[in-house]
Amino acid sequence: MSIPISRHHEGDTHQKVQPRTLYRDVGMLQKSLAPVTSADQFKSPEMLNKPRASVEIYNFFSHEARLRQPSSLKAGSAGLPLNIISLSTGRPSPDTYPFHAMDFTFTDPQLGAALEAGVTAKSCPTGFQTRTASVARNEPAAAIDIAIALSYGYSQGHEQLIQYLTTHISLVHSPPYSDWEVCLTVGNTSALEITLRNFANPGDSILVEEYTYSGAIEVARPLGISLIPTQMDNCGPCPSSLDRTLSSWAVDYPGRPKPRILYTIPTGQNPTGITQPLERRLAILKVAEAHDLLVLEDDPYYYLQFPKSDDSYFSTIIPSYLALCRTGRVIRLDSTSKILAPGLRLGWLTAPKTVVEAYQASHDLGVVHPSGLSQLVTFKLLSETWGHGGFEEWLQSLAQHYQHKANGTLHACRKLLGTGPLGTVCSWSTIQAGMFIWLKISCAQYPRLNDKFQTTKSIETIRLEIEDEIYSNALERGVLCSKGSFFEVPALPRSARAKTEEQSSTELSTGHRRGWQDLNVHFRLTFASEDETDVVKGLETLAGTLKDIFEL
Amino acid sequence: MSIPISRHHEGDTHQKVQPRTLYRDVGMLQKSLAPVTSADQFKSPEMLNKPRASVEIYNFFSHEARLRQPSSLKAGSAGLPLNIISLSTGRPSPDTYPFHAMDFTFTDPQLGAALEAGVTAKSCPTGFQTRTASVARNEPAAAIDIAIALSYGYSQGHEQLIQYLTTHISLVHSPPYSDWEVCLTVGNTSALEITLRNFANPGDSILVEEYTYSGAIEVARPLGISLIPTQMDNCGPCPSSLDRTLSSWAVDYPGRPKPRILYTIPTGQNPTGITQPLERRLAILKVAEAHDLLVLEDDPYYYLQFPKSDDSYFSTIIPSYLALCRTGRVIRLDSTSKILAPGLRLGWLTAPKTVVEAYQASHDLGVVHPSGLSQLVTFKLLSETWGHGGFEEWLQSLAQHYQHKANGTLHACRKLLGTGPLGTVCSWSTIQAGMFIWLKISCAQYPRLNDKFQTTKSIETIRLEIEDEIYSNALERGVLCSKGSFFEVPALPRSARAKTEEQSSTELSTGHRRGWQDLNVHFRLTFASEDETDVVKGLETLAGTLKDIFEL
Repeated sequence: MSIPISRHHEGDTHQKVQPRTLYRDVGMLQKSLAPVTSADQFKSPEMLNKPRASVEIYNFFSHEARLRQPSSLKAGSAGLPLNIISLSTGRPSPDTYPFHAMDFTFTDPQLGAALEAGVTAKSCPTGFQTRTASVARNEPAAAIDIAIALSYGYSQGHEQLIQYLTTHISLVHSPPYSDWEVCLTVGNTSALEITLRNFANPGDSILVEEYTYSGAIEVARPLGISLIPTQMDNCGPCPSSLDRTLSSWAVDYPGRPKPRILYTIPTGQNPTGITQPLERRLAILKVAEAHDLLVLEDDPYYYLQFPKSDDSYFSTIIPSYLALCRTGRVIRLDSTSKILAPGLRLGWLTAPKTVVEAYQASHDLGVVHPSGLSQLVTFKLLSETWGHGGFEEWLQSLAQHYQHKANGTLHACRKLLGTGPLGTVCSWSTIQAGMFIWLKISCAQYPRLNDKFQTTKSIETIRLEIEDEIYSNALERGVLCSKGSFFEVPALPRSARAKTEEQSSTELSTGHRRGWQDLNVHFRLTFASEDETDVVKGLETLAGTLKDIFEL
Repeated sequence: MSIPISRHHEGDTHQKVQPRTLYRDVGMLQKSLAPVTSADQFKSPEMLNKPRASVEIYNFFSHEARLRQPSSLKAGSAGLPLNIISLSTGRPSPDTYPFHAMDFTFTDPQLGAALEAGVTAKSCPTGFQTRTASVARNEPAAAIDIAIALSYGYSQGHEQLIQYLTTHISLVHSPPYSDWEVCLTVGNTSALEITLRNFANPGDSILVEEYTYSGAIEVARPLGISLIPTQMDNCGPCPSSLDRTLSSWAVDYPGRPKPRILYTIPTGQNPTGITQPLERRLAILKVAEAHDLLVLEDDPYYYLQFPKSDDSYFSTIIPSYLALCRTGRVIRLDSTSKILAPGLRLGWLTAPKTVVEAYQASHDLGVVHPSGLSQLVTFKLLSETWGHGGFEEWLQSLAQHYQHKANGTLHACRKLLGTGPLGTVCSWSTIQAGMFIWLKISCAQYPRLNDKFQTTKSIETIRLEIEDEIYSNALERGVLCSKGSFFEVPALPRSARAKTEEQSSTELSTGHRRGWQDLNVHFRLTFASEDETDVVKGLETLAGTLKDIFEL
C-alpha cells in the first residue's frame, strides 16, 4: 500500500504528540555543496532561551582530542554559497552513481502490537500494513534524493535527519540547557571508542558498573585505559561506592590520575537487565557534580522500557541522565540497533556543542559519517513516513512486544529454574526494560567443590571452571548462553598497603564475590532473538544441564 | 525495466572475462547465526597452491594491536551450527525490523559511455537502461535478504560479498601468494586510521610522498605519529630518496624508531595526479624489501586509469603493488567512493591473513562493519546484476568518462593558463588516471615580492600569504580551488648537527622548495564534480585572478 507522503517536513499522519513549540519549522533545507548544520537551527525559542551548560568541556579533553583538527578540505568548502564552481574537492558527480531509483516498503508502527499478538513476519508475511517511500536520483522538490544521500556528507549527519532528531530529543529529553548538539554515529560501540580516545589518555581510568558491556572492557584494554568497577545493587551502581572510590582515590591509587568519566548503561543494563530508578540517577548525578565527572550514558535499551500505562509512551518512561543534568556533563548515546535494525550502523550522540565538535573531528579522520543509504532510509521512515507520533507508537508497541517476551521468559524461569531443587541454586531479578536477564547460580551445592579446593587452583580459577562446565554442557545440548565472566570488570590492584590487607582476607581479588562460601557464577540470558517456544526449550535444556551438573 | 536476475551466484549476463579457474563456485552459502567466512573458501586451487607470504607480520604490530582481542561474545557464537538455540547475543529478531521490502534500480554498465557522449542523468533522466533488483524481508532461496542484511553482521563483511570480492581480486590482481585475505572497510580514511593504530606507536614515523592526501596528515597528527616526506618526481616517490632517508635514519634522527611503513597513493595520486609506472613500483618494492617496510597502498583511483586500447580493461591497467609483491608486505585499500558512490562508506582491504585479522579485531571494537544496507545494495549491483564482466565494463566506461573530462580540462588549461603571459607563471603535468591536476604557480614574477622580503616574515610565511591571496581572490570571484599547502608534508627536524647545516642555507625548512628564486605555490584542481562548461568557466576565472594578481 503506497500513501503519498509529505516531503517537506515531518510526516503528518501521526502528529498527535508534540506541541508546536517543541521545534522550529524551517521548511525545506537548502542543498548546498557541504552543508553545515546545527541543532540550533531547529530548536524552539524556549529551548534556546535556557541557560547554557556550565561544565568546562575543554578541561576533559585527551591529548589526542586536543591535537585533532577538523578536515582542512572540508573546512575550506563548508558553508559556501551554492553558485560557487568547485575545482576543489574530489567529489564525483552524482551523474556517475549507478543508482537510478529506490523504493523502501516500511511496516506501519503497529507492528509491535501485531508481534505481541503472535503474528510474525514469517507466519503472516503479507499481513502487515505497509507504506512505500520512493526516491529518485535527482528530485529538486524533495528533502533528500539519491544524489545527496550517496554523495560525501557532513560528518554531523544529513541536515534533514539532524532536524528530525533535534525535535525528537526536544520532545523526549528536553535537555535542561540550551547549547546541546546532536550528531550521528555509526553505532554506540564506535561512539564509545571515540569517547575513550577523546576523553582519556593511556594510563587513565574510567569508572564503570561492576558488570558491564563486554565491548566496553575490550575497547578500553588496547587503549591502555583501566576500568574501575562500581559496586551494584538492584537499582544499578551504588552512589556510595562511586563516592568512596573517588574520595579515597589518592590513597588507593597513588600517582594515578583520578577518573573523570563514569560509563553507565542506565536502562535494561547489559548484562544485568537493571533499570536505574529516577532517585538513583539523581543520586549518581550528585556524585558526578561533587567529583566533576562526565557521565557517558550508553542507552540503547531506553526505548524498550516496559509500558506501565496506556498514556503517551514518552511521558511515562524514566527520564534520561541527559534530561536530568543541568550542567551539561552527560554524553548520551542512542542507537537504532535495538529499535530499528542493527545492520543500519546508525546512532546519535547528544551532548554540549564542544563535545559534539570533538566527535565530528574524529569522524572526519575516520568513519567520515554513517552510510548515506542508512541515513536515507532512516529519514524516509522516521521523518517522512512515520513522523514523531508514529515513531512513538512504534517504540511503545515494540516495548510491549519485549515486555510480553520478558514475561513469558520470567514465567518459564520460575517454573524451570526457580522451583524444586534448582530453586536453591538459581536466582535472578525481574526486569523493567530491555532484553537481558541475569541468572545467578550459587556454587555452594556444586558436588565436586571440595575436590576442586584440594588442588592448588585459585578460587577464581575454580569459579571459571564451573562456569565453563555449565556453558559447555549447555552448548553441547544445543543452547548457547553468555558467560557472566565476559562482563566482569576486574578491580585495579590498589596501592601496596591496601593490597596486603586484601591478600590477608579471603575475599576474591575481583571484589565482586565474597568468600568461597558465596561462590557464584552468572549467565546473561536473552529472549531477543528466539521466538518464545525456543526460549522455553532453551531454558528447559539449561535446567536439565544444571540438574545433571549439580546432581539434583 | 526489470530483468530476472540470478540469485545464487554471480550475474550471468556479463561473464565474458573471467576464465572458470579464477574462482571456486561453492554455490549458495549457508545462513548461520554469525557466519565465519574467509577468502580461502572461494579461491581457485591454483591460487591456494601459491607459496605463502613470507613477511613476519606480527613483528610490525603496534602495542595497541598486540593488546586487542576479538570480541568475546562474537568469538563465543562464531561458527556454531544452525540448530543452536541462542539465549546469548542481544540480537533483535528480524521480525522486529520495520523494513518489509526494497527495490533498487541500477543503471546499466554503459553509463560511463553515455556520460562521455554528454548524456547526463539531468539531461536525460529516463534515457539510461536500468535494471531493478528486489529484496524482501525473508527470502529463503536468496543469497541475501533484509533479515540478514540488517542484522548484526560479521566484521569481515557479508560472506556473499566476500565471495564476489575474492573472485574480483583474483581476476584483477591475482596476488602472487596464497594466504591473502579480504575484509570490508567503511572507507579508506577509516582503514588508514586503523592502519596507523595497528602498525605504529605514538612517537613512530611513517614514510609518505612529499605531497600527500591531507587526510593522512590530519589522521597521523593526533595519534602522535610523524610523517616523513619522500621526494617525488614525475613518476611518483623517488626510490633513491626513500633509500637515503632509511639508510641515514640513525644519524639523522637519533633515538627515533626507524619507519616501518610507506604510505603511497600509486594511481592518479592525491594531490599531484601522478600515476607510478610499473618500473617505479618495482623499484619502490625493492627498497621496501631492503629495509623491511610494509607498503600501504591507498588506491581509490586505480580503476580510473585512462584506457589506452579497446582490450579488456583489467588486462591493460598498471599492476598494483598487491599484484607485484611476492612477500606479502602490501596492505591494499580499495574504495567504492570514486567508482560507485562515496555515500556508501564501503571499501575493502586486501593483505596477508594476519593483517586482516587485526582489522577485524579493530572493527569489532569500533565500527563493527559497514552498513548492512550498503553491503546489500553493493552485492545486488555487483554480484547479482552486473557480474564481474559488467563491473569491468562499468569501470572502463567510467574511466573513459574521466579521460574525456581530463582531456577537456587539460586543453582548457593550455589555452587559459599555458599561453600568453601566464605561460611563464603556470605549469602542470599531464595525467593518466584519476581526477586531479596539480597546478604549479611560480612566484618569481609576483609583483610585490620585494616588498614582502623587506618585512621580517619568513619565506614560508610569504609563500603561504601569496597562496592565500590567490585562493581568496579566486573564491571571491566564484571559484574554489584546494590550496597546495593542505597536502604538503613538513619535514621532521633532523638531528642538531643536520639542523645547523640547514639553517645556514637558504633552503626552506620543508624541503619541498629550494631558495626564494624558486618560490612556488600549488593548487590542486579537479574536474570531478562539475560539468565541463563549469570547469572551463572556473579556469577562466582562475586565469583572470592570476593575471590581476601578477599584473599581467
